[in-house]
Amino acid sequence: MIVTLKPGAEVSRVLGELAARGLWVSALERAPGEPALLLVAPHSAQVDPRELGGIEGVLGVAAPKPQHPRVTAQRARVTVAGVPIGGGAEPVWMCGPCSVESEQHARELAEQLRPLGVLFLRGGAFKPRTSPYAFQGHGEPALGWLRRAADATGMRVVTEALGEEHVAPVAEHADMVQVGSRNMQSFALLKAVGRAGKPVLLKRGMAATVEEWLLAGEYLLQHGAPVVVFCERGIRSFDASTRNLIDLGAVALLSHVYHQPVIVDPSHAAGRRDLVAPLARAAIAAGAAGLMVETHADPAHALSDGPQALPLAELARLVGEIKRGQPDGGVS
Amino acid sequence: MIVTLKPGAEVSRVLGELAARGLWVSALERAPGEPALLLVAPHSAQVDPRELGGIEGVLGVAAPKPQHPRVTAQRARVTVAGVPIGGGAEPVWMCGPCSVESEQHARELAEQLRPLGVLFLRGGAFKPRTSPYAFQGHGEPALGWLRRAADATGMRVVTEALGEEHVAPVAEHADMVQVGSRNMQSFALLKAVGRAGKPVLLKRGMAATVEEWLLAGEYLLQHGAPVVVFCERGIRSFDASTRNLIDLGAVALLSHVYHQPVIVDPSHAAGRRDLVAPLARAAIAAGAAGLMVETHADPAHALSDGPQALPLAELARLVGEIKRGQPDGGVS
Amino acid sequence: MIVTLKPGAEVSRVLGELAARGLWVSALERAPGEPALLLVAPHSAQVDPRELGGIEGVLGVAAPKPQHPRVTAQRARVTVAGVPIGGGAEPVWMCGPCSVESEQHARELAEQLRPLGVLFLRGGAFKPRTSPYAFQGHGEPALGWLRRAADATGMRVVTEALGEEHVAPVAEHADMVQVGSRNMQSFALLKAVGRAGKPVLLKRGMAATVEEWLLAGEYLLQHGAPVVVFCERGIRSFDASTRNLIDLGAVALLSHVYHQPVIVDPSHAAGRRDLVAPLARAAIAAGAAGLMVETHADPAHALSDGPQALPLAELARLVGEIKRGQPDGGVS
Amino acid sequence: MIVTLKPGAEVSRVLGELAARGLWVSALERAPGEPALLLVAPHSAQVDPRELGGIEGVLGVAAPKPQHPRVTAQRARVTVAGVPIGGGAEPVWMCGPCSVESEQHARELAEQLRPLGVLFLRGGAFKPRTSPYAFQGHGEPALGWLRRAADATGMRVVTEALGEEHVAPVAEHADMVQVGSRNMQSFALLKAVGRAGKPVLLKRGMAATVEEWLLAGEYLLQHGAPVVVFCERGIRSFDASTRNLIDLGAVALLSHVYHQPVIVDPSHAAGRRDLVAPLARAAIAAGAAGLMVETHADPAHALSDGPQALPLAELARLVGEIKRGQPDGGVS
Repeated sequence: MIVTLKPGAEVSRVLGELAARGLWVSALERAPGEPALLLVAPHSAQVDPRELGGIEGVLGVAAPKPQHPRVTAQRARVTVAGVPIGGGAEPVWMCGPCSVESEQHARELAEQLRPLGVLFLRGGAFKPRTSPYAFQGHGEPALGWLRRAADATGMRVVTEALGEEHVAPVAEHADMVQVGSRNMQSFALLKAVGRAGKPVLLKRGMAATVEEWLLAGEYLLQHGAPVVVFCERGIRSFDASTRNLIDLGAVALLSHVYHQPVIVDPSHAAGRRDLVAPLARAAIAAGAAGLMVETHADPAHALSDGPQALPLAELARLVGEIKRGQPDGGVS
Repeated sequence: MIVTLKPGAEVSRVLGELAARGLWVSALERAPGEPALLLVAPHSAQVDPRELGGIEGVLGVAAPKPQHPRVTAQRARVTVAGVPIGGGAEPVWMCGPCSVESEQHARELAEQLRPLGVLFLRGGAFKPRTSPYAFQGHGEPALGWLRRAADATGMRVVTEALGEEHVAPVAEHADMVQVGSRNMQSFALLKAVGRAGKPVLLKRGMAATVEEWLLAGEYLLQHGAPVVVFCERGIRSFDASTRNLIDLGAVALLSHVYHQPVIVDPSHAAGRRDLVAPLARAAIAAGAAGLMVETHADPAHALSDGPQALPLAELARLVGEIKRGQPDGGVS
Repeated sequence: MIVTLKPGAEVSRVLGELAARGLWVSALERAPGEPALLLVAPHSAQVDPRELGGIEGVLGVAAPKPQHPRVTAQRARVTVAGVPIGGGAEPVWMCGPCSVESEQHARELAEQLRPLGVLFLRGGAFKPRTSPYAFQGHGEPALGWLRRAADATGMRVVTEALGEEHVAPVAEHADMVQVGSRNMQSFALLKAVGRAGKPVLLKRGMAATVEEWLLAGEYLLQHGAPVVVFCERGIRSFDASTRNLIDLGAVALLSHVYHQPVIVDPSHAAGRRDLVAPLARAAIAAGAAGLMVETHADPAHALSDGPQALPLAELARLVGEIKRGQPDGGVS
Repeated sequence: MIVTLKPGAEVSRVLGELAARGLWVSALERAPGEPALLLVAPHSAQVDPRELGGIEGVLGVAAPKPQHPRVTAQRARVTVAGVPIGGGAEPVWMCGPCSVESEQHARELAEQLRPLGVLFLRGGAFKPRTSPYAFQGHGEPALGWLRRAADATGMRVVTEALGEEHVAPVAEHADMVQVGSRNMQSFALLKAVGRAGKPVLLKRGMAATVEEWLLAGEYLLQHGAPVVVFCERGIRSFDASTRNLIDLGAVALLSHVYHQPVIVDPSHAAGRRDLVAPLARAAIAAGAAGLMVETHADPAHALSDGPQALPLAELARLVGEIKRGQPDGGVS
């Protein structure tokens, strides 16, 4: 944003007025006689350009063109398969295993999750794995397992479409199509997922800016998605003591400034089971509309990512803490 | 950590037992006949090596040598000038301006902060500024202003020693000596500050790992500091939409795994005044023992960092929210 | 890698022997009587584990399992459409516009590039754009324009397949299929591109480790690609003064340690036209087998990325410099 | 930089003219009737604002105020203790051990280095170590060892002042005072080093932007340093396969755009001895005025950082390669 001053304006006074509104500003050099220009930095608080126009000494305000009108139009609370997400609704839970392992496995887990208040069953049918030799998921059959487990228990299904060829089967079985962080800017996939006309869960890329994330959401909405829910899952870290680096500043920004429905996946963010609960609580406090938590009845036998899966008893405790708004008994 | 297996141990069963404890493990190739070795990744949950020794099939466990015994010995709750910090104590508040501007300015602010429950008066006498042409702080006189303002209102003083020559005057006037993020690994300064024998507030460097941060704390304790309180203030970000990137995973790690007193500075982390409140709430939820918040009665006239300073009314509201454990009325 | 010592081995002497081979080692604590274990850090120089086995006092060496055998088997020099790349071959040039703009545009450019010694014509038919409202490329027709321009001038075509649906037409028209950095871990696309059976140019993801990059190459080779050429194009940077951050350490690693054919795209890495030439020279010095340079006869009228495109006269000068192994006349 | 257009200017034509000069531009929204404003991105090529003023349709150009006039005034070639650095001078070599180990050690090494053409003897007397329990250097005595070794062989001494208390003894013994990367923004130290009046070698901080680095140099020059030579040593990396991430884009920027003397330390950048030679060659190609290379006659017995030290024979080969401008025989 650029603020143009009137000739003779008292620059220091205008600078103070802008600082008072949370704006970081730098003055630019101009030829004598030309109106002074003030450049507002991107990490400033959000203000309405029209408000600035009213400050004494301000001639005009130039702002960047809106980049993602469809995302902007989708404010705060959305509804996915009858479940309200964001905008003050009760936090939504999306739980389940990294990989779906069998029909029985999905069914038993759903029966244990639903009574806790978990409304979305998540689980991988197609798995994005760094190595081609790692388990790639059970594929299409696992979609049916998820669907039937959810139907039997009154849950919804969210699962990932890894490529364009998976979009149709995933959209057929799931209530919400997930786009993974490695595909956040796979634009052909975004278009295909958008065209499927289903609500989308869009994970943030590992080094994506908030602006790029919102623009990826814009791709989805432009191509037909009725709703996009954003999901922070940690960005690339230089510190090996956590698997990824959870960016709750981005969550607060999406929630409080852009008024978007955003949930957090603390399991992938930390990679450490011993940090899932405090980071889940922090995510809700930062403005998250819900949580995606990897859960497994028996992490010792999970087909993938067992070390970060939360056993059911710990999940039950965490759900209770979030409901009451505080940790379970003293400092955890 | 490395787990050595007994000859004939059932490897997949041991891997499951380790996953069940939250450990990420990779198997290494060995010559036939040699005992299998399993390498535990650093982002695993923390477990006691002795517990692993009890798993069937495990021959032995080798762990890295403890790197920071003095930090480890300082667990959870510490006391600074009579104020308990961490370990379940009520969140501590450290508030005040980026730069101390005059004796009267310090005094008036202290009188407004103390009734809110703010126990520490913070403020810069010596300012670390990126440009040599920016305001460098009022220096030694400002130390006296802070001290007298605190004494008059029953507050404590925390302020930064920017170099070795400042350590003596700062230690004379302050209850707690701050080491800034740009100096987190200025080892000569760490030694000098340690020798002053005062409690220290150690801000995290902009690209420091948690391990490096703990080791910087070890320098302080080894050279005489009685107490180190850690302070997260955001790390370097690739996203211009916030000033820095707040790392609440590191806060959770220090609080819940290393049991250290750690506070958070959401002002510097976000740089955006509109995100200070949600990030402050998230910090407490993640395990922070307190908050350092830049505050100014009149941000329009602050000598530095006005755009990120919280006006007093907003601070008062935030203190109330943290006390009650929830946002003030609906979605903020 | 883990080195196990014999009982009674002189640890400091073994540590010295390992340091002499460029290995960073940390000693682990063990119970009395158990053989000492030394853990070798990943940023150590590469050595053959068998060589370490010969050091006095060493009992055994455990190394991670090979993760990408097909990449390892593809060493150094490969051939793409008759052109040798890597392994001491003359640097290969891949040049052309960000977006192909018309049949005539492609043809004229090819006629100007070929005499300079440029063997690969590059150009975007399908463009990955951050915003859905930005120009998305001319699509399939542009593939024919590239093919005919190359055929008329004796060049080869390399162009990107943005999604699975584009793989067949791209593979039909191009000699080499490009996978873009935003798709480096789009595993469904990698499989589809591999199955097309064409040589692949694999750009590195914006926050991908070298290991993840090699594993993405393994996906391609496992699914049928005859050859993978790696391409560094800069990673995500915290410094706005360049568009991305060129990682020539990764290039040196791929070239000198993994013996892979790797080229560099200095245009995207810097984003600044005034840095393309020195970074191109540096890339070759670091071990790059070739250069991909965005070129435009008239950057003022380029449909995308004009500011980073090199005008033809500057490209001609750069090709000459690389051929002679030094800058053109004095300090450039 | 902001470009203001004349009323009625043909915007697309001006955008093309700016793209042709390597400028990335975004148009801002304005009220009807107000002159259009174009915002130039920081990663654009450097151009003289006056040149833009001459483009048809441009009303005026506003540029940020110069931030580091003293650095700007120090262009390209400087002289340190009689040795020209930068501006087309022959590459300067600064070699020696991580830690100076004894008077004899320094003397013998100097006698071996000088005949290779190495003019600066480097070596640590005071060592910045991450752990307080690691070897901290031999301190002041080592300064005398370095001085006498250099005097006996006709070399210059460059060594680090770790804190303000070391500035006087280091300035007394050394020809050039080094400021380490962990102290790049230790402003009290910068002022003290500047006041010593000696040429300074300023290493870049691990997450410092180019602008912050130049401003740190401005601190030194403002406080009395006659000359600042910049040194890139790698920034913080997310990839464990190298110790740090060498940023040769920053080197090209300093050399070719800011016309500053900049050298590169490939030893710390890579941490891997097997990458030192290719990265040294790449640094020179990118515009570096010299190289700082950790060298040890017997890396097996180095007191610190042995794994990254280059044995003398390899250094001799590298010096020869740089002199001839190409690798020694075939592919290295």
